[in-house]
Amino acid sequence: MEVKLSGDKIEQLIQMGFGAKEKMFTIENLVPGSLRLVIPYQTRMLRPGNVLSGPSLFTAADLAMYALVIGHIGPEMMAVTANMNLNFLNKATPGNIIADGRLLKLGRKLAVMEVSLYSSADPETLVAHATGSYSIPSKK
Amino acid sequence: MEVKLSGDKIEQLIQMGFGAKEKMFTIENLVPGSLRLVIPYQTRMLRPGNVLSGPSLFTAADLAMYALVIGHIGPEMMAVTANMNLNFLNKATPGNIIADGRLLKLGRKLAVMEVSLYSSADPETLVAHATGSYSIPSKK
Amino acid sequence: MEVKLSGDKIEQLIQMGFGAKEKMFTIENLVPGSLRLVIPYQTRMLRPGNVLSGPSLFTAADLAMYALVIGHIGPEMMAVTANMNLNFLNKATPGNIIADGRLLKLGRKLAVMEVSLYSSADPETLVAHATGSYSIPSKK
Amino acid sequence: MEVKLSGDKIEQLIQMGFGAKEKMFTIENLVPGSLRLVIPYQTRMLRPGNVLSGPSLFTAADLAMYALVIGHIGPEMMAVTANMNLNFLNKATPGNIIADGRLLKLGRKLAVMEVSLYSSADPETLVAHATGSYSIPSKK
Repeated sequence: MEVKLSGDKIEQLIQMGFGAKEKMFTIENLVPGSLRLVIPYQTRMLRPGNVLSGPSLFTAADLAMYALVIGHIGPEMMAVTANMNLNFLNKATPGNIIADGRLLKLGRKLAVMEVSLYSSADPETLVAHATGSYSIPSKK
Repeated sequence: MEVKLSGDKIEQLIQMGFGAKEKMFTIENLVPGSLRLVIPYQTRMLRPGNVLSGPSLFTAADLAMYALVIGHIGPEMMAVTANMNLNFLNKATPGNIIADGRLLKLGRKLAVMEVSLYSSADPETLVAHATGSYSIPSKK
Repeated sequence: MEVKLSGDKIEQLIQMGFGAKEKMFTIENLVPGSLRLVIPYQTRMLRPGNVLSGPSLFTAADLAMYALVIGHIGPEMMAVTANMNLNFLNKATPGNIIADGRLLKLGRKLAVMEVSLYSSADPETLVAHATGSYSIPSKK
Repeated sequence: MEVKLSGDKIEQLIQMGFGAKEKMFTIENLVPGSLRLVIPYQTRMLRPGNVLSGPSLFTAADLAMYALVIGHIGPEMMAVTANMNLNFLNKATPGNIIADGRLLKLGRKLAVMEVSLYSSADPETLVAHATGSYSIPSKK
């Protein structure tokens, strides 16, 4: 297992794909098999009760998985989420969302990953845990 | 299993919780054990490739589950998502998101549900399927 | 979506694969997209509390999914379980295990299915619900 | 988070519950939040292809989760599996099944855990990964 793209390159590719004008997130600690993705806090991430919303946590887990996939296979922009299983564990205090992703398997057809999710406002508390898979496009 | 709130009342309660100024979604076909929730199309639902995004589909599944829970237990606003498992099946053509939810179990502590997700632009194609659980607050 | 093998043929193929000397299960109601698989009750299916065990219900769900896959793609014995998500809903009274399986998607690489599990001793009570995927071998 | 039962005591309680006459498994490395459970190899664990079967891996994951729960809450024999999500990653060479379990959350109503599964015949290869939850009985 080998890193094929830098964190900067992954950020650029994904943001270009989204047509994003501003920086969406930062990749940190990219090494073979794992990385950290951080999404800066925005008020639209909140849900009633003043906690980070489920969709925001889903988004962070999904982006971390996608970043892991393209970071290890190269810029295959057509990889798509196949399955995502999330356990919501603790209230997520408003803050940047920290997503620590790890590859469990990088197969030819499917990549399987887990992501641990934290808020920067309370970085000791695991707020959610995700496992999921991405379908990898066949080589031509 | 008995419906305890009308669709209109569920819409009001959830939108009030979110402080929403506009209508977020519509509840249809509410009967004991199931309902349909429809979220009107918005361009922000799209992801690269011009399809409905994972977070949008997650949001629809989660709202349909929450609507099912409070529709059958009454206005317990503190019910929270415990687990959500999504399988992404087919590309989701841009359109209103249709979420057909069904209660699998309504227990005292946990409600378990499944949701089938469609786009109104192609209502025959199952775009995603979710199962998940909500933790129900204890009666005082 | 088309049925490519009869229920009898599916039973034979799977039992031959397992080297089973006795009938392991019966396929019923095989139509495009769905089938019922029934495993006869055996005392080894019980766990403490005198209910059908988790592993027995897992086995039934997994066999129903495998039967669905080979029933719709033909005798590709190398299809393997990729993911399985089970929600355990109600105590399972001892009886034959009834697994009602349904294809959610039959793709080239992945088949996604759901299975509803019942005991013949209490056929109105949904005891568990599974969703899962099988990885389909590439055509040579 | 505190360990409330020794590994020996957990083994005894579970085996007594199952009415097992022989040792079913061993608990190792029990510390706050995690443990290893090892199930000795038996030929009935195999499935066609000469690999450890899905039901055997499910059983190991489920026992490791149950051992974690009662190890941390005490001998509440009525805790039951609520959800189990398994990703099957690599072929499992025949050997003892090693299940490394970790508590993600120990709540009053629900315990959420993850388990990494290996075969002793190839202990570097992650063969499956599970996350799941146990429902904890209410205190009287």
